[in-house]
Amino acid sequence: MRAGYDEELLSVNEDLVQMTRLVGSAMNRATQSLLDADLTMAEAVIAGDVQVDALTGAIEERCFDLIALRQPVAGDLRVVIGALRIAASLERMGDLAEHVAKQARMRYPRPAVPQELRGTFAVMGGLAEAIVSKTGSVIATKDVSLAADIAAHDTEMDRLHRELFTIVLSPSWTHGVEAAIDVTLLSRYYERYADHAVSVTRRVVTIVTGEPYVGVSLD
Amino acid sequence: MRAGYDEELLSVNEDLVQMTRLVGSAMNRATQSLLDADLTMAEAVIAGDVQVDALTGAIEERCFDLIALRQPVAGDLRVVIGALRIAASLERMGDLAEHVAKQARMRYPRPAVPQELRGTFAVMGGLAEAIVSKTGSVIATKDVSLAADIAAHDTEMDRLHRELFTIVLSPSWTHGVEAAIDVTLLSRYYERYADHAVSVTRRVVTIVTGEPYVGVSLD
Repeated sequence: MRAGYDEELLSVNEDLVQMTRLVGSAMNRATQSLLDADLTMAEAVIAGDVQVDALTGAIEERCFDLIALRQPVAGDLRVVIGALRIAASLERMGDLAEHVAKQARMRYPRPAVPQELRGTFAVMGGLAEAIVSKTGSVIATKDVSLAADIAAHDTEMDRLHRELFTIVLSPSWTHGVEAAIDVTLLSRYYERYADHAVSVTRRVVTIVTGEPYVGVSLD
Repeated sequence: MRAGYDEELLSVNEDLVQMTRLVGSAMNRATQSLLDADLTMAEAVIAGDVQVDALTGAIEERCFDLIALRQPVAGDLRVVIGALRIAASLERMGDLAEHVAKQARMRYPRPAVPQELRGTFAVMGGLAEAIVSKTGSVIATKDVSLAADIAAHDTEMDRLHRELFTIVLSPSWTHGVEAAIDVTLLSRYYERYADHAVSVTRRVVTIVTGEPYVGVSLD
């Protein structure tokens, strides 16, 4: 019984790692579609989100069956409930990648970000990639020492988010209101994406260490 | 055993209804603080969010204990897992009310929205109130016929959200980039608040009717 249970749990965990790959690839391609005003890539990201949603649904059903059939308690139950929440956060990260791609599609054939901010968004995309791949490692290996790295990337993401605010509000901003709003929303998508990854990491830390979960403001 | 279980579940349900009251009151007061540039009220909303977070934590613990000790299966388990998710959505609604209050505080003593848009935000606040109070009724009574009303309010909220976009992007917008961004973010907070309420309602519908949950894009 126990061996079968552990196998099922491991398989759920592998699916969660697979989700980090999917939403990582989605954000990478979304960033590319944004920087290159690449409509085909944007459409691919938007169309691909159903795959993320389907995997989330499948993981939820399997967690549900695990609880109903195996009736785990204490630490075991916390792991399964934690997996449910991690899946929900990863699904939202997929939605955020989709939002970025939709913004790229909306402004096509014009780029959605002004030339001089492309570099900043490229860095934000790079940080998103670093964060999500490390989040995948944390889930896979339960090596929570990576949590500090992820938190550092998130701090840098927050800094860039604030920097972009300052830029669009400065008197030297010449791109008008629409571009300012585009930049603000896009920047917020990256910042939220990182926040959800931090939340996932903290869930794993809670499961591994038994320390209470420290919430991240997510909406 | 069963009688005790049903009582515990009822008590969790009452706490969820209580959460709708807390996050409803938070959004009402946040709207008030926004419209009146009322710093004291904004501070009260921001300080009050810990109460929402604490109630969420308490509900989560009780759901966890319910699963571990009573080992519900099938429909019973779906109800408890549903309660966990509803609590998470309501907590995020509290965060969004807090975001509105923080925006009011940031611009104080200046109002965060231009005079001519106060009416629109008053309506959005009213819609948020209507939606959250009906969501509370749906949770309390399981009367899912209110779901259509909630969806209609949400549609109207989306329409106002789009309308505000059009206004801040029109050539006649004279309030500059900062005010445009403030309006866009605030409008998004109300729209997300409504989305989370729709998500809660759909969770209840799923529990009551057994129909599959239809996701709402939430991030």
